[in-house]
Amino acid sequence: METTLPNYRRYAIIGTGAIGGFYGARLQRAGLEVHFLLHTDYATVCQSGLVIDSIEGHFTLPQVNAYQDVHQIPPCDVVIVSLKTTQNHLLPQLLPPILQESGVVLILQNGLGMEEIVAKIVGEQRVMGGICFICSHKVGPGHICHLDYGSITMGEYLPRGITARLSQIAADFNQAGIAVQMTEDLLLARWQKLVWNIPFNGLSVVLNATTAELLNHADSRYLVKQLMDEVKVAATSCDRSIAEIFIEQMLTHTEKMKPYKPSMKLDYEAHRPLEIEAIFNQPLHLATGAGIKLPQMMMLYRQLQFLDTQNRLKPTN
Amino acid sequence: METTLPNYRRYAIIGTGAIGGFYGARLQRAGLEVHFLLHTDYATVCQSGLVIDSIEGHFTLPQVNAYQDVHQIPPCDVVIVSLKTTQNHLLPQLLPPILQESGVVLILQNGLGMEEIVAKIVGEQRVMGGICFICSHKVGPGHICHLDYGSITMGEYLPRGITARLSQIAADFNQAGIAVQMTEDLLLARWQKLVWNIPFNGLSVVLNATTAELLNHADSRYLVKQLMDEVKVAATSCDRSIAEIFIEQMLTHTEKMKPYKPSMKLDYEAHRPLEIEAIFNQPLHLATGAGIKLPQMMMLYRQLQFLDTQNRLKPTN
Repeated sequence: METTLPNYRRYAIIGTGAIGGFYGARLQRAGLEVHFLLHTDYATVCQSGLVIDSIEGHFTLPQVNAYQDVHQIPPCDVVIVSLKTTQNHLLPQLLPPILQESGVVLILQNGLGMEEIVAKIVGEQRVMGGICFICSHKVGPGHICHLDYGSITMGEYLPRGITARLSQIAADFNQAGIAVQMTEDLLLARWQKLVWNIPFNGLSVVLNATTAELLNHADSRYLVKQLMDEVKVAATSCDRSIAEIFIEQMLTHTEKMKPYKPSMKLDYEAHRPLEIEAIFNQPLHLATGAGIKLPQMMMLYRQLQFLDTQNRLKPTN
Repeated sequence: METTLPNYRRYAIIGTGAIGGFYGARLQRAGLEVHFLLHTDYATVCQSGLVIDSIEGHFTLPQVNAYQDVHQIPPCDVVIVSLKTTQNHLLPQLLPPILQESGVVLILQNGLGMEEIVAKIVGEQRVMGGICFICSHKVGPGHICHLDYGSITMGEYLPRGITARLSQIAADFNQAGIAVQMTEDLLLARWQKLVWNIPFNGLSVVLNATTAELLNHADSRYLVKQLMDEVKVAATSCDRSIAEIFIEQMLTHTEKMKPYKPSMKLDYEAHRPLEIEAIFNQPLHLATGAGIKLPQMMMLYRQLQFLDTQNRLKPTN
């Protein structure tokens, strides 16, 4: 299997929102060829392009390659999946028409289990993943607001290791001003991100709170820490080890952040489906399958399942 | 110590709300002498009396013995404590002036630890407790709405047993049309009530839901059952045994109830302090002191502590 991409690399963005819209626009601004798949924002983006309000400098791309139909997109070398994981059931229809024979899919989503889904569609050797450390959200059609951070940790799914194509893609992102950390262990990076996502995404929804509010009250802060400790134990089910110091640093780092609403909280407020499957159910499934008990993660998971159902039943509540 | 009350029995109601207002009014309507301590509703009740909207028949008491100051109340044989437990810090000032030497305090509150507080004030042999099975709430000053049920389980604190005075008080309530179950084991009855209160009070606040909504979703129903199982285990710390069939019956019974907002949910919506200390912290304290691990009760407790703080900080949220 080829793990080197051609010198001229064509990108596709599947899901032009807070993540895909931001990174895609930065890649295009840096001179790369980028094709954007859009759904509800298609008409606006055809007319007005993409607007990025960013702490690193505002910019507009008046003209972008926008599509409603994947069959109109030319074959691409790197197909970035930046949909919500709740849309991943669409991937069997979306990926095959646009992925170049020697191309690769780069999954920029949180949680676990997405690489396995994509591997079944395109083959396990055409899959990469990335974990984005970014505060951004869509404020309107084709209009992304980037508040803070922006780096990506990227790695191969199989085979593990720093391949030529991984370095090529990292170089493209670097050219676009995006810091990339290449990892030989994508799964470890995914579990590490879950140390943050599970407590903060989950509790922000259940307790209607920002990161700062959760850390400033002794009881919720204790729950954050307990949940992080459970994620650490859960990771051992995949033979991944998370150091105690990593957890301490993540708490300290989050304290220094501006008060922040995690993506699941924003989804909840917008009455969108919550990414419970990828962020909670897949990790729980792996860990409980290995006989690990996670009472607090499990309780939070069940609370979110309830709230997600109610939230979609009562859209104007 | 005298455990018989005089033939002519004078009642005081400390806390004339959903519980004390309803039972006190029923006792007075049945011909008993009742004295009501009031706070914010004093002026209205002096002017208009007590209004009871009840499934068992509406009635008004145009004239009641209403007081703002305990020192104006004559010595009483039975002092009913029906304040919120969050007000129990006031009891050292409220009880001594009105409790007859041979009288008894009857605590109609949910949770644990109240008898111990009152015993320290009036002596452990002048304490009784009751658990109310009632759906009622205050709809306005001196205006109580009684939706369903109404029976009370009553017992002595120390010594345990069916005393003469317990039978006398039960007879007074019976005369007022209130069913009373006399118990030789008040503490068991309190733990049994917690099997209901801990899941439904707690989850109704955290998940913004009625009893029916909690039971109709598989995940929240599972949490209800898990929490009930934890309360069953917690009760063993006090050498009290709750049968599995009791839990099953409680679930079935709650399913047959109309959709219901537990008192803690009503308190939360009205931005009143939540009864977390009596209903969660005391049981947790007893059980964890005995080395019992209760991860889900503990998590729910911490979530409520956070929400209670936020709810009082943001009164108009």
